[in-house]
Amino acid sequence: MATVLDVARLAGVSTATVSRVLSGKGNVGEAARERVLSAVRALDFQPNRMAQGLRRGHGSAVGLLVGDIEQNVYSALTKHVQTALGGIGLDLMLYNLDHSAERLSTILEAAPAMGLRGVALATTDVLAMATVGPQLRQLQASGLLVVSIGQRLHREGVPSVVHEERSAARRAVAYLLESGRGPVAYLGRLSGSAVGTERYRGYAAALGDAGIAIDRDLVWDVSYRFAAGYEATSRALDAGRRFHAVQCGSDELALGAMAAIQDRGFAIPDDVAVIGFGAIGWGGHVRPALTTISVDPAAVAARVADHFAGREAPALTIIPRTLLRRGSA
Amino acid sequence: MATVLDVARLAGVSTATVSRVLSGKGNVGEAARERVLSAVRALDFQPNRMAQGLRRGHGSAVGLLVGDIEQNVYSALTKHVQTALGGIGLDLMLYNLDHSAERLSTILEAAPAMGLRGVALATTDVLAMATVGPQLRQLQASGLLVVSIGQRLHREGVPSVVHEERSAARRAVAYLLESGRGPVAYLGRLSGSAVGTERYRGYAAALGDAGIAIDRDLVWDVSYRFAAGYEATSRALDAGRRFHAVQCGSDELALGAMAAIQDRGFAIPDDVAVIGFGAIGWGGHVRPALTTISVDPAAVAARVADHFAGREAPALTIIPRTLLRRGSA
Repeated sequence: MATVLDVARLAGVSTATVSRVLSGKGNVGEAARERVLSAVRALDFQPNRMAQGLRRGHGSAVGLLVGDIEQNVYSALTKHVQTALGGIGLDLMLYNLDHSAERLSTILEAAPAMGLRGVALATTDVLAMATVGPQLRQLQASGLLVVSIGQRLHREGVPSVVHEERSAARRAVAYLLESGRGPVAYLGRLSGSAVGTERYRGYAAALGDAGIAIDRDLVWDVSYRFAAGYEATSRALDAGRRFHAVQCGSDELALGAMAAIQDRGFAIPDDVAVIGFGAIGWGGHVRPALTTISVDPAAVAARVADHFAGREAPALTIIPRTLLRRGSA
Repeated sequence: MATVLDVARLAGVSTATVSRVLSGKGNVGEAARERVLSAVRALDFQPNRMAQGLRRGHGSAVGLLVGDIEQNVYSALTKHVQTALGGIGLDLMLYNLDHSAERLSTILEAAPAMGLRGVALATTDVLAMATVGPQLRQLQASGLLVVSIGQRLHREGVPSVVHEERSAARRAVAYLLESGRGPVAYLGRLSGSAVGTERYRGYAAALGDAGIAIDRDLVWDVSYRFAAGYEATSRALDAGRRFHAVQCGSDELALGAMAAIQDRGFAIPDDVAVIGFGAIGWGGHVRPALTTISVDPAAVAARVADHFAGREAPALTIIPRTLLRRGSA
């Protein structure tokens, strides 16, 4: 497919000149204009949808609100959502929430005046629906399409595209128990995260399935950070807690746990097996390679784009996850 | 400082109602209006700058064009730039380039019509200045402020905020040589990256300083990906190349190299030392912990904000880097 660069080269003008000729805005000499139009015909050039979207202005933009762009789960999602939206001629405006409820509230409040096509809300933080609910309804009443990514808000009237959480964790923990790796600890029960809570429930369900009672000393409620995983696992090992596996709420926590285990001279997986959650890029290259639970941001992005393209789409889409068996469990 | 939530709570109304009262837009009953204004006075509430910025629309937004948002260097940068711009009442629009010269060209071409305050260009890809130069000048002629992040474009009239590259690599390689770790291989010479080229030149300079000729078999030109680092290092080890250290152009490459070295039963750093570049979060928690070269996205963001705030700022700002000595070298 010919690009604006091809047209500019063939016509012997700059891309800016091509743009001026095609948009009819700005002055272009008649000779240059002729050369551009002739090049457009010769190459059968079609101005691309992205450029058209950009020129239409922000009525063609979707605001993507993410929990923390520095976390890989959100940066990978952002990349895929931007690509998928670009494919339907929509642009992306990114808002980083930094897990701040006040920032979320401020942005939602301002959004109706921002000329957006819609808002995609990608945060796993438990939402204060007494505040956020009316704001989301206000957005919808203003004609904006709102889609939730990662968190189930379909019962609040917000179509949601989420990953499997509880059942994926349940299968992973069942695999650990069936491999004789019990007792299994849980690292990263996050009471403030809707997704963290679901993953923990999967752990609890797998233990229940096996007739095992939950040992509170083996459930560590920490934030999703490398250092938090390192510290919680170190404390448990130093206190002599007995466990032969750790199911983690994220890959970051899993890496912290692996470092703590290795620093104390224990072998992974022989002494302690570790499973992460989320399949971040580095997981396949740490040693031992991290066994984890898959993520599919491209599938999420495609379903989100379905909503913004006005294609038929269910109120709740659940993207499946699978266990990626590598070296650590 | 009181927030819009505090005002809403004290007045017993929703934040949307507070917003309507303060903006004078939309219907609010007289009683609720009185309660809001009384709460505003009681709490000495000042509407925050971010909300004001959002309401002003995109004239208060800066377009941030990043090479690849999924790479940690860009996601960390994005987070810090958004925070720093928010501090001066500016919003951020993110454009992910995906290392595509055509996408860059399309966005730069459309930017003057997008109502932005300015553009921050954060890509280390070598730019085709014959195309990009005129587009940048067209942006500036349209009254937009353009700032380059990571790449030196000050000689093209674009103020630039960059990290130290060549000299930082030179010091790291000198450290390896002085520690008796030679021969030192270089992983990740990226001829298509302005920054990659600079880092490689630092390696070459350190070898020159020590009177060592460059061995082409020990310079591996690969992309900045885990798998590329793994494969290049594996090939060199399997071919029996002799080296006792690898200076890498990125932390991702370094992790790939470490996996290749460990998979072949060699010890890090005793058999082969490894130094990364860029100090990504997981580097401190892999084992051995990755010795690397620091990065300071907060400092970059602060200097970028200086430009957009109209504060006095040099045409070229260089943020220093230091060697972070951990376990791998």
